[in-house]
Amino acid sequence: MRQAGTNLPKVGQYNRAVVLDHIQFADGISRVEIAERTGLTPQTVSGIVRRLIGEGIVREDGRGTSSGGKPRMRLRVNPGAGRAVGVAFDPAELSCVVVDLLGNPLGRQRRPTPPHGSPDQIASSVAELVDEVLGDAGVRREEVLGLGFVTPGPIDLTQGLLVTPPQLPDWDRVPLQRLVAEATGLPVTLDNDATAAAIGERWAGAGRGVANFAYFFLGTGVGGGLVLGHQVHRGGSMNAAEFGHTTVDPDGPQCYCGNFGCLETLVSPAAMVAEARRRLASGSESSLSARGLKHTAILRAAAAGDELAGGIVDRAAEQVATVVVNVVNIVDVDLVVLGGHGIQYVEDRFRGAVERALQTRPLARRIRTARVELSPLARDAAAIGGAALVLYATYSPRVSELLSL
Amino acid sequence: MRQAGTNLPKVGQYNRAVVLDHIQFADGISRVEIAERTGLTPQTVSGIVRRLIGEGIVREDGRGTSSGGKPRMRLRVNPGAGRAVGVAFDPAELSCVVVDLLGNPLGRQRRPTPPHGSPDQIASSVAELVDEVLGDAGVRREEVLGLGFVTPGPIDLTQGLLVTPPQLPDWDRVPLQRLVAEATGLPVTLDNDATAAAIGERWAGAGRGVANFAYFFLGTGVGGGLVLGHQVHRGGSMNAAEFGHTTVDPDGPQCYCGNFGCLETLVSPAAMVAEARRRLASGSESSLSARGLKHTAILRAAAAGDELAGGIVDRAAEQVATVVVNVVNIVDVDLVVLGGHGIQYVEDRFRGAVERALQTRPLARRIRTARVELSPLARDAAAIGGAALVLYATYSPRVSELLSL
Repeated sequence: MRQAGTNLPKVGQYNRAVVLDHIQFADGISRVEIAERTGLTPQTVSGIVRRLIGEGIVREDGRGTSSGGKPRMRLRVNPGAGRAVGVAFDPAELSCVVVDLLGNPLGRQRRPTPPHGSPDQIASSVAELVDEVLGDAGVRREEVLGLGFVTPGPIDLTQGLLVTPPQLPDWDRVPLQRLVAEATGLPVTLDNDATAAAIGERWAGAGRGVANFAYFFLGTGVGGGLVLGHQVHRGGSMNAAEFGHTTVDPDGPQCYCGNFGCLETLVSPAAMVAEARRRLASGSESSLSARGLKHTAILRAAAAGDELAGGIVDRAAEQVATVVVNVVNIVDVDLVVLGGHGIQYVEDRFRGAVERALQTRPLARRIRTARVELSPLARDAAAIGGAALVLYATYSPRVSELLSL
Repeated sequence: MRQAGTNLPKVGQYNRAVVLDHIQFADGISRVEIAERTGLTPQTVSGIVRRLIGEGIVREDGRGTSSGGKPRMRLRVNPGAGRAVGVAFDPAELSCVVVDLLGNPLGRQRRPTPPHGSPDQIASSVAELVDEVLGDAGVRREEVLGLGFVTPGPIDLTQGLLVTPPQLPDWDRVPLQRLVAEATGLPVTLDNDATAAAIGERWAGAGRGVANFAYFFLGTGVGGGLVLGHQVHRGGSMNAAEFGHTTVDPDGPQCYCGNFGCLETLVSPAAMVAEARRRLASGSESSLSARGLKHTAILRAAAAGDELAGGIVDRAAEQVATVVVNVVNIVDVDLVVLGGHGIQYVEDRFRGAVERALQTRPLARRIRTARVELSPLARDAAAIGGAALVLYATYSPRVSELLSL
């Protein structure tokens, strides 16, 4: 990454995006308030707002409280001014949403990923799914700004390739960005699912307007996303926020990643099922049975009061909390967001464990206690994140663009 | 932290700082090369360079290789254009350096911190020390841009207070910034010693020109600094990079910070001395003796081939390596710098352990292996960091300034 200067057109784009961000995150805001909060002059703000209104992206919406003189018009984003599609791809399931400019879902659907499908078959299946979702939501293709395609596992962002998708051993450096763009006729943005979900939280979830937050995504694996100084932090090799591969137990088992005692090896669904089987085999009482035991059964049993299942969930939550505290001590975020299907039914146990840890363990807790929130986007977090990728690339103030060559 | 817009004067300042940074980090660079590397137009670069030359900060230095047409003048920073003083304060020792604009030390001295000194006595002692260092180096007070005062422990940066300095139980929210400014007659910048040392590495050490790096400072405690995207990352409460308080052993002893099994509780000098005593008491053979055992004796014995001491050092190095890998997986830095008196005599053992870990454990290692380097600033890292604080605040391109209200 070069250290670049900037110029007037970039500054104009950036300031426009900052103004739009403030309008989006506020529940109605005046031009004067925007000027106060952004440090921009009232003239600059007025000019930007005039253009945003002209383009239909922002609208004036009733009169706000005036401070004496002229009443102030409140500004809001026009949610209908643009649509974006998000598709989350994993080996088991394709899910798709279409959202408006505020990130509200207008339609959504899921279908099983074609087993042993070729990349072309996957792309066709995605195109069918997108057609259905747009049709059901009554959204025309011309209204769609783009499609965000998100997937677990390593991605070559510069070339739009899936490098080695999990559980698809025959796939290697597959140009899925191009294939999906050809099949759907939409411009396609590719990204990691956890990074996208973090962007979704910033756009429409628990991270709205928060300067610094960490997003923990507990799914089949444990992924994450980081927003630092209002910017998505990707890191030098674009692989930041791999919270699942930090060490919780240095003497623990080696992870497929090469590291030892990774969080993911301890709290993944597979690890929790294995732990439950061990406890059942040792004769502990439980409503669960070892045969055909599934992860969701453990989560449901824990929610229903089963002691063995509860113990396993609480242990996993403690291990997540240890990594949360490490992340807070390393990057000093204001907020931690927990999401993903790995915490369904037991969200409050995870939240409680993390909250207790944040109140008692980070070094800076007396200066400011980091908050914890559950993702409001839940099962759709990755797909909504995909759609948010498109909105983020189109509308958000990005320092990387301001300071790009 | 508000999300602010920017304006022309700020952009001008920022671009000037970016140009100066490129001149400082290159070993001679032409205007054309600066334009290529910064994305600024040749006209903008020429204008900025003309002013920097006019102010005496930059000079033209011989002719570079030409690519056909006109020969290119090489630009270099004029090291004599400014001086900065750094003072590192810890309960045992005051150390002071004066550096030129490239961060080269022109003079340095240490003295014991007055025991049980009042804040006023400390400030007087600092003023005497600064006078001596400036006198010995032949630097006039008027040439000094400012004094960076650095200290371990929590600081209230907004008010210039030491909140609760370690081992000074009677001190509470001491306005040392003001006292030192009054005693020395210099403008004073206050900061955490590890953060300052990281800035020193960026200015004049192993981090020169590196976009993303983590600095591990092994001293009485374990501190750290993070540079992300060419910017010092301080975090939401200004307490990022507390690597010493991340958990290595969740079942380990509780640290004074409230967390469990912190790196610092395992590898601090006190912890290593305690571990050596345990091993000696169990009858292990060694050249060390338990009576009056000091940390430096362990490090020296390890360097001399003592097996017991070597085992203790290697164990500490492995624990540091575990945290290094966690930091790389979380923030994805390109470089890790190791410094501080805690690794003296055994620098290569620490470097080796961290290097092996970085080659085999981070998730993104196949995309790009993070490098490890030893701090070239060694014992003076904190004091040079203090001086670099002043240079950084005066000259460096800071996004936080570009986007401030």
